[in-house]
Order: sequence, then C-alpha cells, then structure tokens
Amino acid sequence: MAPTLITAEALRAFGKGVLQKVGVPEEDAKIVAEILVESNLRGIDTHGIYLSNLYVRRLEKGLINPNPRFSFERKRSGVGILDADFSLGQVSTLEAARKAVELAKEAGTGIVAVKNSNHFGAAAYYAEYCTKRDCIGMVMSDGECDVTPFGGRDKFMGTNPICCCVPAGTHPWFCMDMATSEVAFGKVRAAAEAGKTIPPNWAVDRNGKPVTDATKAYAVVPMSGAKGYAISLMIEILSSRLTGMPYGSHIIRKFDDWENRAFMGHFVQAIDIGAFCPVEEFKRRMDEFFSDLKNQPRMEGIDEILIPGEPELRIKMQREKEGCPIREEDAALLRKLGEDFGVPFPA
Amino acid sequence: MAPTLITAEALRAFGKGVLQKVGVPEEDAKIVAEILVESNLRGIDTHGIYLSNLYVRRLEKGLINPNPRFSFERKRSGVGILDADFSLGQVSTLEAARKAVELAKEAGTGIVAVKNSNHFGAAAYYAEYCTKRDCIGMVMSDGECDVTPFGGRDKFMGTNPICCCVPAGTHPWFCMDMATSEVAFGKVRAAAEAGKTIPPNWAVDRNGKPVTDATKAYAVVPMSGAKGYAISLMIEILSSRLTGMPYGSHIIRKFDDWENRAFMGHFVQAIDIGAFCPVEEFKRRMDEFFSDLKNQPRMEGIDEILIPGEPELRIKMQREKEGCPIREEDAALLRKLGEDFGVPFPA
Repeated sequence: MAPTLITAEALRAFGKGVLQKVGVPEEDAKIVAEILVESNLRGIDTHGIYLSNLYVRRLEKGLINPNPRFSFERKRSGVGILDADFSLGQVSTLEAARKAVELAKEAGTGIVAVKNSNHFGAAAYYAEYCTKRDCIGMVMSDGECDVTPFGGRDKFMGTNPICCCVPAGTHPWFCMDMATSEVAFGKVRAAAEAGKTIPPNWAVDRNGKPVTDATKAYAVVPMSGAKGYAISLMIEILSSRLTGMPYGSHIIRKFDDWENRAFMGHFVQAIDIGAFCPVEEFKRRMDEFFSDLKNQPRMEGIDEILIPGEPELRIKMQREKEGCPIREEDAALLRKLGEDFGVPFPA
Repeated sequence: MAPTLITAEALRAFGKGVLQKVGVPEEDAKIVAEILVESNLRGIDTHGIYLSNLYVRRLEKGLINPNPRFSFERKRSGVGILDADFSLGQVSTLEAARKAVELAKEAGTGIVAVKNSNHFGAAAYYAEYCTKRDCIGMVMSDGECDVTPFGGRDKFMGTNPICCCVPAGTHPWFCMDMATSEVAFGKVRAAAEAGKTIPPNWAVDRNGKPVTDATKAYAVVPMSGAKGYAISLMIEILSSRLTGMPYGSHIIRKFDDWENRAFMGHFVQAIDIGAFCPVEEFKRRMDEFFSDLKNQPRMEGIDEILIPGEPELRIKMQREKEGCPIREEDAALLRKLGEDFGVPFPA
C-alpha cells in the first residue's frame, strides 16, 4: 500500500493538537510538532510525527512532564547546565540551543549540558537553530543501548548521534546528523522484513558474531569498529558524565518501559563565527570550499558529490510541495491516537 | 632484520640535538623531541622520531621557522586565535593547548584556532596536556589530501585526525586519537609491500573503484563512507575555515614539496570539568562507566574490552622498560641525518 501524502501543515496541526490534549502548553506543543514534522520533511521519517504517539502515551502516564520548570545555571561565562525537569526533549534541547547561542555571543563559544531530559528527535533542528544565528552548532546525545562495544557482544551504548551544522553563503549549509553505529537498527529491521541479507559489518547475533541474515541480528555495531566505538564513547561521556545522567545500558527503553521516567542527557555547543572572523568572510570561505568539493571528479555511476545535509534539503523542498509520505502502518497508529484523544488524524 | 631497541631517553636526546643544529632553541627542541618520542613510546611509530628528519630538512630550507614569534589574540573570554608564524607544529599546538586551558579555567571552555602552523605529529599529547589539568581536551587538524570525498574519485581531504582525551580516576584516561579515513595510507602501503590483499572498503584506484590489490590503491576512503566523509569535512571546517587557512587539496605535500611553506590550521578545545561538577565526582563517574564497560560480555576470541587509549598506554609501559623498536629503514634515515648534522644517532 502506497504511503499517504499529507501536508506538513496538517501533520503539525495534528501533533500540536494531541500534545495539547495531554496538558502540553500550546507554545511547547507547537515547537514539538514543528520539530517532529521537520524530520518528515527532511526524509528522516523514523524521527517524525509517528513519535507523537510515543510522547503522548508517555505524557499521559506522567513519564514525561508537560509543564516542566527549567532551571538553567550558568556556571561560567561560556558554560551552563540546563535541568529539563523531565520535559519533552524537543523543548529542553531548543532551550539549550538558545542558551548556548547566548553564551557564544558573549564568550565566543557556549556549551550547555542538559540533564533530566527526554528523547529529542533528530538533532539537526537544534544545530540549525545555532546556524541561523551565525554560529556553528554541535549537538550530541546518548540513548538507550542498541550498540555493542568494540570486542563486546552485548548492547551497551546508544546509537549516540552527533550533529554539526555550519552556515555557508550561496551553498546549502553543512549539516551532518548521524548515528555513530554503522547503521540504524531500523535498516536491519527493514532488511529482515524484506527477506534481504545485510553486509557482515552491520550487526551481530546474540553471541556477538557478525550476521548477514538480518533476522538473526541482535545488535548493531559501531561504525568502522574501534573508531566509531571511540566516538560513541566520547558522545556518551559528554552527554552523561558531566551531569551524572545514566549511560546507555542504564537508560530506560522508551518504547518498552512504561513505569520509569527517562533521565536523558544531551550536549549542546554553539561557536560564534563572528568571534573568529567577519561572518560574510567565513561564508565566502565555505562557498569556495564547497564549490571546489562539488566540482571534484566523481566515481563511476555517481551524478553529484553532495554536501552533508544537501540530500535532506532537497527532500524537504519536494515534500513541502507534495506533502510528506506517511506509511499506512504509521497512519494507523496515529489514527488510533487521534481517536483516543479526539484529534482526527488528517488521513 | 629486527628493529633495534633504543631507549626513549636516547631518542629524545638525538631529536633535541639535531633540531638545535638547525636553529631551534633548546626549550622548543626539547618539546618537539619529547612529543615525537611519546609517539614511539605509544606504538604510533608513523608519528615518531623518524619525522625529525622531515622537520630538520624543512627547517634547514627555511620552510619551517625555528624562531617563531607567536601572536595570540584572545577574541572573547572563551576563544582566541594563535598565529604560529610557521613554527614547528608541536610548539604551536602545545602553546594552543596552554591557552585553551587558560581560557577554559575562566570561561568553562576555551577554543584556540591555530593558523600558519605545521604538522604537529600525533594529537594525543596536546589533548592529554588538557586532561592533566582536569579538562577534557579536543584536538583536530586538517592535512594534505589523501582521502576521496564520498562519491568522488580524486584525493580531496586529509586524513583529518580527531582526538579527545578525558580523565578518569583509577581507570586509564579515555584517549581517542584517530584519522577519519577508514585506514591510514600506511596500512595500505604495508599490505602492498607484503603482497597482501586489502578489504574492499579501504582504498580506491585512480578511477575511484574499490581495490583489494593494495598495489593498485591510489587513495584511501573516509571511514564508514558518508559518515566519515561528514566528520572529516567538519574537522576541515573547524581547522581551516575559521582562520582562512588552505584546506586539504590546497595544502602542500610536506614530504614532496621543498619550495613552499605549509599553512596548517588546527582546532584545540579544552572543557574545564570543574565548571560542571566536582572533578573527583566526575572521575568517579568515569570509573563507574569504565568498570561496567570492561565487565561486558565479550565476543569469541576477545580477551578484554579495551578503553580507547588503553592499548597505547600498555605499549608505553612496555617500551619505557624495553626501549622503542626502530625499523632499520628509519634507523638508516636518522643515522644519515645525524651524520649530516654532527649528532650521532644512538644505533
């Protein structure tokens, strides 16, 4: 069954509507819906509107706090800690990006460590918030464990995303937003459902042995083995160890655990470009670099060399016109959610 | 022919001696020799004492400045730019780490962008400098191009290293120091010399096609394809675009170009742990995390789960006792260097 195309506007209205029904204030509901739908627009549907079901159900059970009282402690001119009071991760991380930019505009760079937060969706939105204000934005988060350590056979680390966004002039922004596992577990699941094999460097079985039969996959592995393992640990350290949040294997599984609150930690940094050089000069330098990059000779079969973030931007332009494809499976879930809370899903 | 074992002390004395012969002040010569030999001790011989030949020859030709006048401009409380005046990269990057720690102790974090520098050897030394002062140290650098962009077939980016060092209590420090290519080109060269094949995800030929015959390898590829490509670009941006230094494909090849100075850029950041929490508390958190990690169930054939930096630390403990193995090829190069400058190589 082909996915239904739904406008971003209709998806945003739905998301905002259901979140408000469980006590999220209008402004926050709007922010969360916008951030979720931004992922749909960018083609990252795994972080899109379907998550509103998860969030609403957890809000309903009191596992996410709809009316958090943030407390931000500026510890030095360039760093601070934001206690998110168990808010929706989108609301707290956007607030952290605001504070990081504020600090950066003064100190040249600003780091905000976020504690007592929740899943924040895709990281790009917060990094782009910084970039819109002429900063380089960096966002990291840990997450519940799905990834084996290098040499280990049990899940220990999250897919620990890292995101960096940098402004350019005429070229699209640089926007790297990725999990540090070799692949997202979703890709393994998709291969299993489609009866396809997977490359041997993607996942391992219960005994830690590499598998090509996707149905036997138990955990995914770090990208590039020891290298991704190290980067993933760095992200975990920056996300949880500065604030004493739990790490990967101690983070509750948000889709499975309906008794306990999550205690998520994030790391948000802004670097004010204007502290180093005139912003327009920097953007010229970025354009020069990217023009050169895009003019590089290509491998056979490759039409174009892409800047990280460029594919997502193109999908966004298309989906803004045509609507976002929502899989029937997700539409059914959201229809049910809408029925339960009296907000009709627009398909 | 088995490598000769030489004590770190003797290697340091040699390095310091030859550098002084081409006008490097004693204190700087000592620093550079120490940093080079630290790589030998850690088992990273590609970044060790054999580089003294390269540096001395470039110094002799005036391509590296033995008596630089650094100018550090503190742009905001947390950021600054260090103009290295074409110094040895070790001297400037250590100075950058000093400044980054100074800024971090005040602003909570400190970034120093280094310009007009040279090859700095291995990054770990500078990050560890920060860690010894209870900071998280981050060091990045671009480099002359050896790596293809994702989808491209020509060299465009350096192997762009990233290093992060974090203190722990009883466990060894976390020390990630890696190139962002799938492998160092040296490994491909070694396979070619040994007549061994390489995995298809390591390198490409002149047409951008993956090769398993190492002798046909022209360039190495980013780790994990698009992911490593993005990380490598981020490092390039942070190392060169904030200060207007040339990027990968415009950086001179230090082993081949004997006419032009290099204009290297680095990015050094320190994060003061004490700005976020008591340092002892942080170290306890790191120990708790690493104890758990090291106790994780292992894959078959794996004796131990290692913390990034732990293998190098063990090699160092061994080599401090037994001496550093120097390949005959490198020993011959250094013997000749010693003869040319009247400083006998100790083997």
